Amino acid sequence: MTLTSDRPAPAGEGPPCRQQGSTESRPAEGRPETPFLLVDPERVRRNIARLRSRLARSGTPLRPHVKTAKSLAVARLLFDGEPGPITVSTLREAEVFAAHGYTDILYAVGLAPQKLDRVVALRRAGVDLQVLIDSVAQAEAVAAVSTRTGVSVPALIEIDCDGHRGGLRPDDPAAVRIAGTLERGGAEARGVLLHAGGSYHCRSREELVDAAENERASAVRAVELLRAAGFAVPVVSVGSTPTAHSAADLTGVTEVRAGNFVFFDLVMAGIGVCTVDDLAMSVVVTVIGHQPERGWIVTDGGWMATSRDRGTSVQPVDQGYGLVARLDGPHYPDLLMTDASQEHGILTVRPGSHGTLPDLPVGTRVRILPIHACATAAQHDEYLVLDPATGAATEIWPRLRGW
Amino acid sequence: MTLTSDRPAPAGEGPPCRQQGSTESRPAEGRPETPFLLVDPERVRRNIARLRSRLARSGTPLRPHVKTAKSLAVARLLFDGEPGPITVSTLREAEVFAAHGYTDILYAVGLAPQKLDRVVALRRAGVDLQVLIDSVAQAEAVAAVSTRTGVSVPALIEIDCDGHRGGLRPDDPAAVRIAGTLERGGAEARGVLLHAGGSYHCRSREELVDAAENERASAVRAVELLRAAGFAVPVVSVGSTPTAHSAADLTGVTEVRAGNFVFFDLVMAGIGVCTVDDLAMSVVVTVIGHQPERGWIVTDGGWMATSRDRGTSVQPVDQGYGLVARLDGPHYPDLLMTDASQEHGILTVRPGSHGTLPDLPVGTRVRILPIHACATAAQHDEYLVLDPATGAATEIWPRLRGW
Repeated sequence: MTLTSDRPAPAGEGPPCRQQGSTESRPAEGRPETPFLLVDPERVRRNIARLRSRLARSGTPLRPHVKTAKSLAVARLLFDGEPGPITVSTLREAEVFAAHGYTDILYAVGLAPQKLDRVVALRRAGVDLQVLIDSVAQAEAVAAVSTRTGVSVPALIEIDCDGHRGGLRPDDPAAVRIAGTLERGGAEARGVLLHAGGSYHCRSREELVDAAENERASAVRAVELLRAAGFAVPVVSVGSTPTAHSAADLTGVTEVRAGNFVFFDLVMAGIGVCTVDDLAMSVVVTVIGHQPERGWIVTDGGWMATSRDRGTSVQPVDQGYGLVARLDGPHYPDLLMTDASQEHGILTVRPGSHGTLPDLPVGTRVRILPIHACATAAQHDEYLVLDPATGAATEIWPRLRGW
Repeated sequence: MTLTSDRPAPAGEGPPCRQQGSTESRPAEGRPETPFLLVDPERVRRNIARLRSRLARSGTPLRPHVKTAKSLAVARLLFDGEPGPITVSTLREAEVFAAHGYTDILYAVGLAPQKLDRVVALRRAGVDLQVLIDSVAQAEAVAAVSTRTGVSVPALIEIDCDGHRGGLRPDDPAAVRIAGTLERGGAEARGVLLHAGGSYHCRSREELVDAAENERASAVRAVELLRAAGFAVPVVSVGSTPTAHSAADLTGVTEVRAGNFVFFDLVMAGIGVCTVDDLAMSVVVTVIGHQPERGWIVTDGGWMATSRDRGTSVQPVDQGYGLVARLDGPHYPDLLMTDASQEHGILTVRPGSHGTLPDLPVGTRVRILPIHACATAAQHDEYLVLDPATGAATEIWPRLRGW
């Protein structure tokens, strides 16, 4: 939560970074206590290399979404140390990343007009921050602040390709009215943005390819109407982790967004975009008890550590609150975290399977592979990197929080 | 996440408080940006007075659970400013509250033996910290650390009365073995603890009264067996918000625990333990768009602000991700937050109802009444108190995080 004054920051004062505590990674020592978030930097690198290599074929730039990891250390892996274009889900992410040299930022959540003063402050500080809108009311607010401050705010128009959230239909003439409202007020209609959120429900490779093509074609349709009406709208931004890994053609697209892919999770594995072996983040928990009559192992990792996300419950294979893995090894194919209270997790054999409960005495540490990496990571303040040989922590990567 | 060295803190060094940033409430100014947590101190006071008054009838002490609010400011309301006995769900809560004068603390999550060094450090600092166990393996660890350090650690034995989580059956002879293991090692078998988690599924006043009596009777049965075996076990600790508000008889009980009641939530209203008007905490969000064809209002409050908790989905009335209320007034009976992505909420008329979508233009602020207060509050770093006349923030109450 951030309290802001009504007064925009004076020009040249630098980005208004509201960070509390360090956001920089730091060395760690000692044996961490559970529950904690464990990250595998090699798998993060591998996941990033895979998507970059895929997009390199068509030469389409990647604008990664930092909302999943919310970590400067992960962003450094995304860009080989050099700040590049990013997507953010909160102005707090924009402010912290701006304070660390990121100057090309897309704020990809529909704009609440009350937040425009922070947008203007970042632009005055030299950040090319773009906002997202899908209504004339928002365009009027963006135009008004551009007129009032003399700072031209660029906006993308959100287009909806699959009915899952915000945005205009690709052929909605309101897009032209929005662009006109922006430009008459000294703001900028910079392009269109689509997010094929419906792709999270795909069940086959074919459906994924179709979802990606639908996203692309809807984007091109919308931008053609705007260009025919005389607006330059150079940006055609599409993406989601499933479609970014599935698009067969990106003609007309100027950038692809994806966020979850740095870590992946069991929802993505269920869609078929990755395998369980690609999951780069997990929650380490400790066994604190057993209920043999009920076939339960009880751990100190409840929903406070994993989140309440049950995203695989609508997929063909329900993974509960997560698959259980050895601390330093592979997962148990049929051992799940099936229930959670605030600080307790219940591990059981997968219902209907022929698995047997492993012998995990009190004090044993295991890892919970997350259902939804964005939600699980959000329950924690930092990631730990461990030395695989000793189990000791070697690095701490802080996460951003708040709005 | 906390990294600890293997070395316990030297005696007399004071409680090892690992807090980062201030945990003290502070004055606020300006208009907060959404999403944020709004707390109504008058309702918190009313909810506390109601339970205190109820328990005063039988003279049973309350040991409130601070895991819901995780706030020193709320704890101050619980105790009229004077630190009293508390229950915690993490050692971090224990450490921060200890640093603020709370010296009678029950850590009510089954103990991971690796955490005993922090327990000993708190006891050395003068905190009467009790732990919770339900196995001989844990008792051996508690006894070993007591022997090794000369600091006698008191433990409660967890008893299970309704099959929902950890604990021994009330007549399980293992309790006597656990008590013996503790006391032979210089630790202390201080009593029994029960949590009637099954009461969250009660559907009537009668079922609630029965659940409370089952919790009490199971506690008394377990403690009688221990006392017959020669252990003093003075503490008989029971509680949950539903049973604490329903018990007709507390004979034999020495303390009642409850946590959620300071705020209440829609799960508790669904059980019938409170009314929607008792809810003392909500999430303030801003309207950022509309999808009239689908009957949707889109807000800037997604699951990052509300949590993914859908606890009312198993109740007779499913409240989705929360009921929608006016910023400064009552709730709309049939307007729900029915879907959520990370930073987007979808508001719709309750399925099957005859409600109509209110006219809420872009920029309008509304409140989301939480499904599960513990989970919703955990998504935020602080509570805001607003001046009802101006909508400006007057106070910030920080929350604790981590383990």
